[in-house]
Amino acid sequence: MPEREKPGEECGLFGIWSPRRSPLASLVYCGLFALQHRGQESAGIAVNDDGVFSACRDEGLVSEVFSHGRLEALGEGNIALGHVRYATTGSDRRENAQPLLVNHHKGSMALAHNGNLVNSMELRKLLEEKGSIFHTTTDSEAIAYVIVRERLGCGSIEEAVSRAMDTLEGAYSLVIASPSKLIAARDRHGFRPLCMGKLADGSVVFASESCALDAIGAAFLRDILPGEVVTVGEEGIRSDRRHCGLCPRRLCAFEYVYFARPDSVIDGASVCLARRRAGEFLAREHPAEADVVVGVPDSGLDAAIGFAHASGIPYEIGFTKNKYVGRSFIAPTQGERESAVRLKLNPIRAVVEGKRVVLIDDSIVRGTTCRRTIRLLREAGAKEIHLRVSAPPFRKPCYYGTDIDSAENLIANRHTIEEIAGILGADSLGYLSLEHLRLLTGGDEGFCTACFGGEYPTAVPADGEKRRFERKIHSNGN
Amino acid sequence: MPEREKPGEECGLFGIWSPRRSPLASLVYCGLFALQHRGQESAGIAVNDDGVFSACRDEGLVSEVFSHGRLEALGEGNIALGHVRYATTGSDRRENAQPLLVNHHKGSMALAHNGNLVNSMELRKLLEEKGSIFHTTTDSEAIAYVIVRERLGCGSIEEAVSRAMDTLEGAYSLVIASPSKLIAARDRHGFRPLCMGKLADGSVVFASESCALDAIGAAFLRDILPGEVVTVGEEGIRSDRRHCGLCPRRLCAFEYVYFARPDSVIDGASVCLARRRAGEFLAREHPAEADVVVGVPDSGLDAAIGFAHASGIPYEIGFTKNKYVGRSFIAPTQGERESAVRLKLNPIRAVVEGKRVVLIDDSIVRGTTCRRTIRLLREAGAKEIHLRVSAPPFRKPCYYGTDIDSAENLIANRHTIEEIAGILGADSLGYLSLEHLRLLTGGDEGFCTACFGGEYPTAVPADGEKRRFERKIHSNGN
Amino acid sequence: MPEREKPGEECGLFGIWSPRRSPLASLVYCGLFALQHRGQESAGIAVNDDGVFSACRDEGLVSEVFSHGRLEALGEGNIALGHVRYATTGSDRRENAQPLLVNHHKGSMALAHNGNLVNSMELRKLLEEKGSIFHTTTDSEAIAYVIVRERLGCGSIEEAVSRAMDTLEGAYSLVIASPSKLIAARDRHGFRPLCMGKLADGSVVFASESCALDAIGAAFLRDILPGEVVTVGEEGIRSDRRHCGLCPRRLCAFEYVYFARPDSVIDGASVCLARRRAGEFLAREHPAEADVVVGVPDSGLDAAIGFAHASGIPYEIGFTKNKYVGRSFIAPTQGERESAVRLKLNPIRAVVEGKRVVLIDDSIVRGTTCRRTIRLLREAGAKEIHLRVSAPPFRKPCYYGTDIDSAENLIANRHTIEEIAGILGADSLGYLSLEHLRLLTGGDEGFCTACFGGEYPTAVPADGEKRRFERKIHSNGN
Amino acid sequence: MPEREKPGEECGLFGIWSPRRSPLASLVYCGLFALQHRGQESAGIAVNDDGVFSACRDEGLVSEVFSHGRLEALGEGNIALGHVRYATTGSDRRENAQPLLVNHHKGSMALAHNGNLVNSMELRKLLEEKGSIFHTTTDSEAIAYVIVRERLGCGSIEEAVSRAMDTLEGAYSLVIASPSKLIAARDRHGFRPLCMGKLADGSVVFASESCALDAIGAAFLRDILPGEVVTVGEEGIRSDRRHCGLCPRRLCAFEYVYFARPDSVIDGASVCLARRRAGEFLAREHPAEADVVVGVPDSGLDAAIGFAHASGIPYEIGFTKNKYVGRSFIAPTQGERESAVRLKLNPIRAVVEGKRVVLIDDSIVRGTTCRRTIRLLREAGAKEIHLRVSAPPFRKPCYYGTDIDSAENLIANRHTIEEIAGILGADSLGYLSLEHLRLLTGGDEGFCTACFGGEYPTAVPADGEKRRFERKIHSNGN
Repeated sequence: MPEREKPGEECGLFGIWSPRRSPLASLVYCGLFALQHRGQESAGIAVNDDGVFSACRDEGLVSEVFSHGRLEALGEGNIALGHVRYATTGSDRRENAQPLLVNHHKGSMALAHNGNLVNSMELRKLLEEKGSIFHTTTDSEAIAYVIVRERLGCGSIEEAVSRAMDTLEGAYSLVIASPSKLIAARDRHGFRPLCMGKLADGSVVFASESCALDAIGAAFLRDILPGEVVTVGEEGIRSDRRHCGLCPRRLCAFEYVYFARPDSVIDGASVCLARRRAGEFLAREHPAEADVVVGVPDSGLDAAIGFAHASGIPYEIGFTKNKYVGRSFIAPTQGERESAVRLKLNPIRAVVEGKRVVLIDDSIVRGTTCRRTIRLLREAGAKEIHLRVSAPPFRKPCYYGTDIDSAENLIANRHTIEEIAGILGADSLGYLSLEHLRLLTGGDEGFCTACFGGEYPTAVPADGEKRRFERKIHSNGN
Repeated sequence: MPEREKPGEECGLFGIWSPRRSPLASLVYCGLFALQHRGQESAGIAVNDDGVFSACRDEGLVSEVFSHGRLEALGEGNIALGHVRYATTGSDRRENAQPLLVNHHKGSMALAHNGNLVNSMELRKLLEEKGSIFHTTTDSEAIAYVIVRERLGCGSIEEAVSRAMDTLEGAYSLVIASPSKLIAARDRHGFRPLCMGKLADGSVVFASESCALDAIGAAFLRDILPGEVVTVGEEGIRSDRRHCGLCPRRLCAFEYVYFARPDSVIDGASVCLARRRAGEFLAREHPAEADVVVGVPDSGLDAAIGFAHASGIPYEIGFTKNKYVGRSFIAPTQGERESAVRLKLNPIRAVVEGKRVVLIDDSIVRGTTCRRTIRLLREAGAKEIHLRVSAPPFRKPCYYGTDIDSAENLIANRHTIEEIAGILGADSLGYLSLEHLRLLTGGDEGFCTACFGGEYPTAVPADGEKRRFERKIHSNGN
Repeated sequence: MPEREKPGEECGLFGIWSPRRSPLASLVYCGLFALQHRGQESAGIAVNDDGVFSACRDEGLVSEVFSHGRLEALGEGNIALGHVRYATTGSDRRENAQPLLVNHHKGSMALAHNGNLVNSMELRKLLEEKGSIFHTTTDSEAIAYVIVRERLGCGSIEEAVSRAMDTLEGAYSLVIASPSKLIAARDRHGFRPLCMGKLADGSVVFASESCALDAIGAAFLRDILPGEVVTVGEEGIRSDRRHCGLCPRRLCAFEYVYFARPDSVIDGASVCLARRRAGEFLAREHPAEADVVVGVPDSGLDAAIGFAHASGIPYEIGFTKNKYVGRSFIAPTQGERESAVRLKLNPIRAVVEGKRVVLIDDSIVRGTTCRRTIRLLREAGAKEIHLRVSAPPFRKPCYYGTDIDSAENLIANRHTIEEIAGILGADSLGYLSLEHLRLLTGGDEGFCTACFGGEYPTAVPADGEKRRFERKIHSNGN
Repeated sequence: MPEREKPGEECGLFGIWSPRRSPLASLVYCGLFALQHRGQESAGIAVNDDGVFSACRDEGLVSEVFSHGRLEALGEGNIALGHVRYATTGSDRRENAQPLLVNHHKGSMALAHNGNLVNSMELRKLLEEKGSIFHTTTDSEAIAYVIVRERLGCGSIEEAVSRAMDTLEGAYSLVIASPSKLIAARDRHGFRPLCMGKLADGSVVFASESCALDAIGAAFLRDILPGEVVTVGEEGIRSDRRHCGLCPRRLCAFEYVYFARPDSVIDGASVCLARRRAGEFLAREHPAEADVVVGVPDSGLDAAIGFAHASGIPYEIGFTKNKYVGRSFIAPTQGERESAVRLKLNPIRAVVEGKRVVLIDDSIVRGTTCRRTIRLLREAGAKEIHLRVSAPPFRKPCYYGTDIDSAENLIANRHTIEEIAGILGADSLGYLSLEHLRLLTGGDEGFCTACFGGEYPTAVPADGEKRRFERKIHSNGN
């Protein structure tokens, strides 16, 4: 797909500590499988068997990277990590697959990371000036370095993680395996989610979303707090909260709007209900005279139901989504026809023909896909199309790990709402207001709204531009 | 998956005739992609370039079998066929992939077939007694033989097809390519669907379902009639209806209930609306006191909306389906836990907790999956579960191409409705009645209802049992 | 490799009958592995377990086609066949892989074939006129048809094979498996080799070359006679010689010169010694004043030793052959440099520098490779190069299964010996004479020498040209 | 292959600097292809395009790792490195593939290494104590670190390499690419070879063996001296010899005996002639009354010719080696039969039957393969077998990169020569003497003979045992 149609650049984390040695890789596999929507580019699992780490990481979906043989080769252990990763560029993407596995003075360490630092350039520079070498282009390697250096001067890995958090700035949820402990940490703003669960056999589990706990039959315990470090080992579960409460919570709003699975509960709020509520708000903010409410699959469906319930207009399934569309699909190249969109999303004529349609989408980036979807609905006989978007317009770059295209490509950055409606071919258009977005989960608990034009919760990289390490290794020295 | 959870053994057909030589393979690719739900086991395309046939057929999904290189290698042509096929057993399944390509006295012929003959054993025996050899275990090869033998004694391929229909008994929709013509044929009962469309450039297209016409931007023309032979060539489109109207139409009801895509229109009726109507009938036949109506994805969703509209109980999305479940997924093997089901279909607690739920499924075969789904709903907090099934109970084997497990495994064959409800753990259970099934598409236009205990529209194989050629080649002679 | 450097189009056969059910596929694997030099394009194994045949056939080397899993999936049996095949053209080459597996009136049959019929076009035409259909483009399918039709009218499969031999004209060695018997047959002229061996456990083995018997530890019993049909079954080994002695033996001389492995013994003569003898004859026919004798690896080496022994000039290893050159090697494309040849075959400067070199090659087709080899020797410092070729010049097409390029590309067809020496850059050039070729194996036992300008032992296809079915299926009818 | 039959653990290096930007990857491909015998486990290429490095590294043969697409993706550049690597153990072997690519303070660096440090454990410990992290288990990463740390305190990369050589102990040949320079270095003892060549267009090439220069048509310039650092850049070629002449040359004798290709010239001596000379020495040291001299392919052949010339006994080709044996070959598992050996190496009965045979092998490790080879010769009718080995007996471990099995498995470590002859089934046995080994290349220029019981040229790892990092990452800390 040449064009990014939706915000991207997420990752999914999974970690497990078991009271006894067992084949943990298959549990991590199930957990990653439930987190697959957070990253389709690469997948990896690391298993720690009493300090000996084995890892398997590669480009591809979880089901492509792992075969029975590969899972078995990972053997048994009592701590294991898993990671799925969104697209990065460059020819050597395989090497950026996580978990990262390093040897250091005090032993080995595996680390999996979700989010983006805002000071990774500075950190790399400082570390390189002390003679460090970098193998990958990820900021995760800088995180590992900072932790390892702190580890030299303190008595435990969890203390080193906590001290490192004084240095790391930006968005990071982490799961880390040392030879004998499993550690979870979340940056002070809590940009990215991370939760904890428990299996009946006493195993402790960390995951980016609660749906991964469900996947392995684990009970949800609680969310990791912004700024918290949780350590699991033979001595039980310990929490270090010295970084908590130092700044307001700033969870990425897009976790509710688009990234997360509807069956997940994040920071105490159901994703499904948050989307439903977005639809209800839209019905109040931007009502429409219409015959049916239809959502763009998959993340527009819950908001469509919310709109339908609030407005009294019947909810309908308006599209058939081809569930076989995957990375190996060969898009047709002939002519300018819209068939690639139609192959993925065919409107159901029997539902929309002759109808006034409220169409709910979760976001508009460039608008290209949305324009084609609306055209398909018209061709299928829709009389009017009232587009409602369950998030405010994108206007600014994100430095915390959400890839939302460059500012000049964002349709909302260059056009008024009316113009956008015209470009897309909609009879009317309404976005969710920033005020309502803040109330998505019931009360105003603090989202990061920087990309919608709100305040950036941290300093941003000095050149005011989104820096990208996610490229080929580059250098200018000698 | 060791157990067949749903009826199976379908195929999808696609054929195109173009007024000029062009790279047809990519159009067939798009068409097959839209028909992928009809068969995930193998895929094939054959291109006829002025009598020279090239073909590519293999096990796997359309997107797995065909790469850019393979599509290009098929070259240009003015007639092309495509086929997707459901699972068959045996080590040499690749050889059963279609389209079948044969050389004969009058040239070459490619053939793609959907359905099952009831007299293929007899035909093979007769042909072998005349010295014929069989390479595959499909009844399609017997069809090809019968047509080729008729061709020896008549002046055109379409006449040979028509004469062959006197011999072929059972279910068959066919698309056939001769060196200069494209032919579509449907058995007298019309067991399997087949329709015709047209591209703006004058190309004529045949497909199992209308969604494949949409996929390539073709306009729907009409359904092929039961018993009709349609021939496309330089002289235009000709219809031979000598076999039409000789017996009542007997389309497989499962095309509406489960097989077909909701955006398809089959024999004049929208699949989506037929499912909606099933839900409405269920609401009348088997009403329930409940708080929400929830469908089992994907084919239960439309019926759930129908039930919701007719009953006034709100429709909700009750499950998150993991869209990455595919053939390469490694199901967990540890213990008896239900996690394989949960990995695929996780209930949304926020939607069902504390609620009385109407659950709509499209069919119950053994009941194992259904029982697990109900248990997951209970664990997610559902207070009551009222199961409604949008088809009558399965009781009899199908000889026309639908694989519905052996009779002794069918739960409805051994238990009363009440017993089934108990086994599945449902608070109440209601199946669609045979009377309402007949009215799915508006009027009583004639479905095959043999598997629900209705009459078999044809003679059935002599030993009263489902014969299976779909095995290793076997012989007992010398 | 765009250009065929050496004669091609061979196949290798293997068949085994065991007195008890056992995992025969791994024995066939070893046998085929030893016959790999006879065909690198495709490989196949068929196992007969009491009349139930399983087969695995694909493009690629034996080691590529067969994994542990695939061998195991073939299961146990008491009869098995194997086949390796040289390159054919067309997009559907996989379907031409053998053994061919067919069902017919009296059961199933597997067949593997080496050689080319001269009347396969006529046979196909006759069979098609009776309503037969052909799936492949091989003449092996015509052979199967003829046998199956004969089988209808006679009491046993071996009788059917023998009767079929009245109809089949040209070159064919066959191994055939019926539900209970293993049959080997060789055409009356004995164009292609076939021999028989025995394992200690009583198993009977047929193979194209004796090296395949060595590979599985089988003792060599004897060669199959030209025209003989040997049947192995529960009643033991029976021989039908009714077609023997009807015409003179005409084994392809290239089996000794190039095709066969030096450790094989064919029709009573060692391949290694035959090559040695070719070198000795060359030393007498075309002596040279020189310092070293060097062979072009691999098949020129034995002749080089023969030349050295007969001439008294020391034998040396003059080239290092890169043993990793395989089908996936990417030849360099930059400029006109000779590096592709040098990558495969690097002269050893220490051996040839300042020396007068006798260079022994087994054949010259177009001369391109030979010219480059000579240039490399010059660059490595060779002072004089006296090229000796261990076969007579190619001048005519072969209709019996050896692909020697089209006549207009054969350098010997258009140039005198002196001209060829000039073109190749050799200081002198000598070919083995036809007279000496006839004496390669000791006495004059009758080779086919048609390609060297001798008589064709059979009628040749009517149009006087090499016909090729080995293409896309083509047709011209309606 | 469960057992290592021959010494292993080598690597091959290739580096090129071009005066202009061009697609260097295909040249490196050809060079690595010629060096494939030095490492079949993994292959890698790194291309430097004006400071931007692209790399492709993976397990497998050169021809397996690189496709046309992958070579093209590496793009153009003016400096490039290549590496092939012998087997290492562990599940994450892909990550040990070289060239190593790192980012550091002054830019990027790629590094390829052949050999083994003896102080890498100490270096890693020191570096880890300063907070360094290690991603791989290779000592090459320690080399990179040492160089990068030196680079912080000096003005150029070549100066940093030279300073690093004060710290690095053991065996290392290196090729290194900085953003603007290509550097080659060889340890003071010169354990591993490295040479330099030139292309007609002014490109400078480094390679482990001269055969890689031949492969790309480069002229041989000279060998890199033990202790030398050669730097190539815009300023031309500069040599730093401050480490030269500080200790005697200690090239690994096995480079001549077994590792290198016969067409290579190493440190001024032809490998082919060195082997020839080994055979001549053997004929004098251990003469035999025999009818034929036969070498074990491939590295025994030249020594056999030497023995034949010196003794007057005729040289013969006694075995056919199956050239299709590769990594994917499935060895037969049934029974105790010797068929795996026979599949690879079949004796030619016509050559050895009834003969007294001198058999030349290059080395004996455990003796298992040799015993089987001798048994095959007996079964093929050899009357007497006089085994001559073109190297002295192995008795001690190697710390410099040659893997010769653990001491307790070395047959020569536990048995007298007479006992070994008895175990192997030879009628007589003679090894090359240490004195003659020293004269292999004409004069006594100084080989490392530690594994034959000579002196170790360096301190050896403290625990007196071969340490192996080439395992899973292991740690014991917290």
